[in-house]
Amino acid sequence: MPRRSYHHGDLANALLDATETLVTERGIMGFSMREAARAVGVDPAACYRHFASREALLDAFAARCFAGFGAAMEREVGKLADRPAPDRLRVMGHAYLKFALAHPAKFRVMFGPRNVDVRVPIPGQPSAFDLLTKTVEDWGLSIPGTDAAQQAVVLWAGVHGLTQLILDGALPATAKERQAHMDAVVTHEIAGLLARAAKRPKEKA
Amino acid sequence: MPRRSYHHGDLANALLDATETLVTERGIMGFSMREAARAVGVDPAACYRHFASREALLDAFAARCFAGFGAAMEREVGKLADRPAPDRLRVMGHAYLKFALAHPAKFRVMFGPRNVDVRVPIPGQPSAFDLLTKTVEDWGLSIPGTDAAQQAVVLWAGVHGLTQLILDGALPATAKERQAHMDAVVTHEIAGLLARAAKRPKEKA
Repeated sequence: MPRRSYHHGDLANALLDATETLVTERGIMGFSMREAARAVGVDPAACYRHFASREALLDAFAARCFAGFGAAMEREVGKLADRPAPDRLRVMGHAYLKFALAHPAKFRVMFGPRNVDVRVPIPGQPSAFDLLTKTVEDWGLSIPGTDAAQQAVVLWAGVHGLTQLILDGALPATAKERQAHMDAVVTHEIAGLLARAAKRPKEKA
Repeated sequence: MPRRSYHHGDLANALLDATETLVTERGIMGFSMREAARAVGVDPAACYRHFASREALLDAFAARCFAGFGAAMEREVGKLADRPAPDRLRVMGHAYLKFALAHPAKFRVMFGPRNVDVRVPIPGQPSAFDLLTKTVEDWGLSIPGTDAAQQAVVLWAGVHGLTQLILDGALPATAKERQAHMDAVVTHEIAGLLARAAKRPKEKA
């Protein structure tokens, strides 16, 4: 096997690139540090100087995926900065599903059983969760007993649940049906937000 | 290795029992027909007469899990047959999360990337999806452009999404926070249903 040398830091990036290729091609099952090392042409021992374990490498890869995901969402929503919050929520829902279907392996690494808290900020850029929370805040709805982050969790749950069910085949659907399902989820979420805010004066805290 | 003999049909059940034990103990990764065969004390070739492949065995196991899940939900909701639909929806949401946290391995087999259409009826008993749809129908809300099954998909998405995010550690939460999140999701879903039904006369089909 050829042995290559890398500048400081480059090997870590090369390993993350190799992880992306390998996980995209074959999924996470069977992925190993040894395999990643082989793909970049170095000894596994060299890799362990950058990532303490296979899990640490996958965690770093998941963090990179979240950064890309947040950037993709921001591109979609950024174009709509002047539009009302419900329009932005709708676009975010569809963008979420689109990302998952376009990058199923990444999505599974991000949201598989890896215990990655997606609310943790990504250095230097907004996360998808930040974007969602900001959209809720921009809307200025005030719902008793719940802050923007709690509302964001509720909105996120519906979009994530539908996406996961479609991705996993639990809810088989054509492209048109998928759109209709996501539209229904977001429409329902928006109706719920408006209803809960509207009746605020009648509610007890 | 001892070889045991089974009456017709018993081996299939024994293999499903072994699958439950093995998958519960160690998850789906690395699970093999060979391992299941060893657990029940027969030759792998005998197993392939009942299940054409590892995937076929896991599909049969997932079907059994769905039957158990539907029965668990029915036990919880059946007690509340006289209660209003929103109360039943709330109980179903909490029961869903409770099942997933109590049986994570089963839940992952049921809802992992196995392309099991959960809306397919389970012979001889209502599925969890049937129960949900029936609850929506019982409520008698009429929302334009959407039938009870479509409404059920929307409700399910929120509950499933929150459950999956908690189970996977994407949304770390204490037991109390988990309850609060699920309550928020179901409250929001109910508010959305009521709002969409209430404004029906003003809407165009």
